[in-house]
Amino acid sequence: MGEVGLVEVANPSEMFLSHRSHPSPGSVVVASLEGTRPFLVELQALVARTNFTVPQRIVTGLDYKRTSLLVAVLEKKVGLPLREMDVFVNVVGGVRLAEPAADLGILVAIASSFRDVEIDDRTVVVGEVGLSGEIRRVSGIEVRLKEAAKLGFVRAIVPAGMKEDLDRPADIEIVPCQTVLEALKHTLSARSVN
Amino acid sequence: MGEVGLVEVANPSEMFLSHRSHPSPGSVVVASLEGTRPFLVELQALVARTNFTVPQRIVTGLDYKRTSLLVAVLEKKVGLPLREMDVFVNVVGGVRLAEPAADLGILVAIASSFRDVEIDDRTVVVGEVGLSGEIRRVSGIEVRLKEAAKLGFVRAIVPAGMKEDLDRPADIEIVPCQTVLEALKHTLSARSVN
Amino acid sequence: MGEVGLVEVANPSEMFLSHRSHPSPGSVVVASLEGTRPFLVELQALVARTNFTVPQRIVTGLDYKRTSLLVAVLEKKVGLPLREMDVFVNVVGGVRLAEPAADLGILVAIASSFRDVEIDDRTVVVGEVGLSGEIRRVSGIEVRLKEAAKLGFVRAIVPAGMKEDLDRPADIEIVPCQTVLEALKHTLSARSVN
Amino acid sequence: MGEVGLVEVANPSEMFLSHRSHPSPGSVVVASLEGTRPFLVELQALVARTNFTVPQRIVTGLDYKRTSLLVAVLEKKVGLPLREMDVFVNVVGGVRLAEPAADLGILVAIASSFRDVEIDDRTVVVGEVGLSGEIRRVSGIEVRLKEAAKLGFVRAIVPAGMKEDLDRPADIEIVPCQTVLEALKHTLSARSVN
Amino acid sequence: MGEVGLVEVANPSEMFLSHRSHPSPGSVVVASLEGTRPFLVELQALVARTNFTVPQRIVTGLDYKRTSLLVAVLEKKVGLPLREMDVFVNVVGGVRLAEPAADLGILVAIASSFRDVEIDDRTVVVGEVGLSGEIRRVSGIEVRLKEAAKLGFVRAIVPAGMKEDLDRPADIEIVPCQTVLEALKHTLSARSVN
Amino acid sequence: MGEVGLVEVANPSEMFLSHRSHPSPGSVVVASLEGTRPFLVELQALVARTNFTVPQRIVTGLDYKRTSLLVAVLEKKVGLPLREMDVFVNVVGGVRLAEPAADLGILVAIASSFRDVEIDDRTVVVGEVGLSGEIRRVSGIEVRLKEAAKLGFVRAIVPAGMKEDLDRPADIEIVPCQTVLEALKHTLSARSVN
Repeated sequence: MGEVGLVEVANPSEMFLSHRSHPSPGSVVVASLEGTRPFLVELQALVARTNFTVPQRIVTGLDYKRTSLLVAVLEKKVGLPLREMDVFVNVVGGVRLAEPAADLGILVAIASSFRDVEIDDRTVVVGEVGLSGEIRRVSGIEVRLKEAAKLGFVRAIVPAGMKEDLDRPADIEIVPCQTVLEALKHTLSARSVN
Repeated sequence: MGEVGLVEVANPSEMFLSHRSHPSPGSVVVASLEGTRPFLVELQALVARTNFTVPQRIVTGLDYKRTSLLVAVLEKKVGLPLREMDVFVNVVGGVRLAEPAADLGILVAIASSFRDVEIDDRTVVVGEVGLSGEIRRVSGIEVRLKEAAKLGFVRAIVPAGMKEDLDRPADIEIVPCQTVLEALKHTLSARSVN
Repeated sequence: MGEVGLVEVANPSEMFLSHRSHPSPGSVVVASLEGTRPFLVELQALVARTNFTVPQRIVTGLDYKRTSLLVAVLEKKVGLPLREMDVFVNVVGGVRLAEPAADLGILVAIASSFRDVEIDDRTVVVGEVGLSGEIRRVSGIEVRLKEAAKLGFVRAIVPAGMKEDLDRPADIEIVPCQTVLEALKHTLSARSVN
Repeated sequence: MGEVGLVEVANPSEMFLSHRSHPSPGSVVVASLEGTRPFLVELQALVARTNFTVPQRIVTGLDYKRTSLLVAVLEKKVGLPLREMDVFVNVVGGVRLAEPAADLGILVAIASSFRDVEIDDRTVVVGEVGLSGEIRRVSGIEVRLKEAAKLGFVRAIVPAGMKEDLDRPADIEIVPCQTVLEALKHTLSARSVN
Repeated sequence: MGEVGLVEVANPSEMFLSHRSHPSPGSVVVASLEGTRPFLVELQALVARTNFTVPQRIVTGLDYKRTSLLVAVLEKKVGLPLREMDVFVNVVGGVRLAEPAADLGILVAIASSFRDVEIDDRTVVVGEVGLSGEIRRVSGIEVRLKEAAKLGFVRAIVPAGMKEDLDRPADIEIVPCQTVLEALKHTLSARSVN
Repeated sequence: MGEVGLVEVANPSEMFLSHRSHPSPGSVVVASLEGTRPFLVELQALVARTNFTVPQRIVTGLDYKRTSLLVAVLEKKVGLPLREMDVFVNVVGGVRLAEPAADLGILVAIASSFRDVEIDDRTVVVGEVGLSGEIRRVSGIEVRLKEAAKLGFVRAIVPAGMKEDLDRPADIEIVPCQTVLEALKHTLSARSVN
């Protein structure tokens, strides 16, 4: 790699992901949009028993309150006892991620670290999460999936009902999910897609 | 759906609402105005017993203090024991909603989640809420209702006395309410309008 | 009413007040100035026994610290035991009110809710409040009272010594008060002016 | 008085002070500068036994941290037991006062309320206060005193050593003080100057 | 040295580092980038048993939340009992350092102070740290190392897999590390490289 | 003195210092730079036993976090039991001081108040302080000392190794110090330099 710094980068997804090592619990890749431009980025969560009366919640690169809502969904709808756990969430590479379509990735990363189970590293995740634990449809699904397929991902966890939004079939296996429970079942129990 | 991102959207209401699944407790649609342009948006609340000494209050897309006032009205005027509950409120789609006319929607969403009762998904809600629990009239009622009718909603909970603000009868059943107690009775006990 | 939104409004006072229902404890109308233009606006307070160790103080549309000072005056100079009470204060219609001349209105609204006594709905209130409980004179008294009379108010609680600031007699009964104790006596014990 | 609002005011000092009633404990007038223009303004403090574990400190129109330093000087150098007291400080008329020359006024107002002793209403106060309780010299003493004399004040508490900064004798009795203890003795024990 | 102040400095790395004295626990030099321009800067950490219930975390010149994440990695992945320790981190010279490539330096500085072991003063550190304790690759490695070699550093702790990013061999010994545990072993146990 | 206010001042150092009275514990003068222009300014600290569970830390005119780091150095490296003390720090004259070269002055002022020992009033202090208690070199030492000598100071506490930065000998006695312990010995035990 040459000098990068703040210079324009041809394909930011490649830059962020080229630095990935083998998968570890708490890491997941989300297919995001900046304007109409897709880019893939890695989220990481670290969940561990707290030593404090009030557990720590530290979040960088993401909206703090949004992440707190997702922690609440995991507690109240999935039943994870996060009240006794410190939760740290980070976007790799110093990126800032603001769109609701990253919700599912944040939630999956936290659950992955809590259960100490790795996510398959050729799976990408996308979807807004509602407070009743449902996964909600997002815009731009076509470009998100095309970018993921181009970068070698083979499976995408997406909101149910989005297949019909695609003009032509994607070059990636699509796993539609209606609820976060379904999405967690697909990402945390079956690690390989082949 | 094609690529959307930050491009201009012909009808934002349709975009927000097309993603709705079947109704669940805590969800309600409000008829809002941005300038003179109406748009419908879904609010979600999640209310659950707290594990903390000070209950959690996390709000995204809405004014935090305004929402706290509405929680207070539900406690002091309606009698919900929210002091022992965590309360989370969210606007779907990452939208920011700032006008007082959304008050009644926020309040109904919280009560709906607390009582675990769904709101009929063809009902829309609009009204400012005062600290004595009265529902106050809002501006632009005509365009709000027209937009709701256009998108297939069949019933509207509105402040009492607004019918006379309409130049011609709306294509939607109007349920005028003077107090939040009336509004809760109409939204939480009778789920279907047909 | 037609479409309003953010369009220019001929008479904002009328808009805010046309939405008023019958009086309830905690509500009071203040005669305010924005620049040299008068407008009348309704303040609401809700005071109720607290369930927390530290009582809640939630304020929208008004300066938080200023309102805290007025709560202190009610505690230390009038003797209301607000330390055990949650106090919520709101300006109706989403208006922001920044001038000290609204002090007396804020204070009267809080006392009205605390004592559960309604303020007569044809009375308007104006005056800055000092830390020793005195009511201090304000600027622009003439335009404030003219606007109130025009909108049908029949009585005005004003700072003592302001009558001589008027070029001609106002079309409204003037009740000059030197202290907040006097103002509370005139607003909370005698509800009707006729 | 006619309409004022935000229009230019010929003499702001007169406006602020014309509204004064008879003196009460906690009130004091300071001679301030805005740029090179002098104006007199009234400060008010309210000190009362606290009902909270952590006493309240609410300040409007003044720098919060600066006022906290002055409370510390009163505690550590003068010996006032303010730790058990709520302290409220306010600038009358909604004015914001930022210069260190107001220090002595803030400190005297707090002590006046604490001891429940009135300050003579024809005395004006000016001086920066250091952390060892010394009163420090300020700039522009000449214009400050001229303005005070013009408005009818007859006595000025000023930092020691400032008399020699005057080009000609002032039309006001000058009481130079080296420490806050001296200044408190001159303002809180002898109320009248005649 | 002459007068510097805010004037342009030919080589900021030299300025920051020329002021270094002999190494002490908690100090480490990181090779940073501002845009495409490399500069070396010294980080310092101070870790000491806390006297408070909630330990102190004070950080200047670095992002507070980012540093908290790194403290969490040291606690959860390396096992340092930092919960009982105050942690202070500082960038020497009043510099502000915002890029993730400084992560490893912050982490090494904290561990160095905790273990009271000095870092060799001719070693430079660079690398982003992930929440599972892995060291992630950074951009611009070539210019970073060239600058370090020019200033007399003889060893560089870098992310594993970066050697192949170099166009030609660097004039500095490269120690590639995959995890923070490896990096700590290389910096805290062997102090000299010769 | 005439009218000053916000007008340009020929020599700000003279203005700030002309107001000094005799020395008192907690006061020290630092030689600072604004751009390339030197100015001398007085810092004051007040340290006193706390009455609160969490001791007070109030700082005006200086960076709060930077001052907290220096309090930590005094606790952990010098051994002052500041955990039981309130610490107040102030820059005289309402000045804001942002450069690291003021570190040593802040630290010496706090220690001076804690030990209740005055600093000689013809001594000036300059130096950045590192977290291991070392004094670090600063830029612009020549202009700082020239200004101090011009204003009548006879001794300067400076970082070790800076004498060689001077083009010609300064008109002031130079006391080079490597650590804060040395600097405290030179300022707090020997008060006079003659």
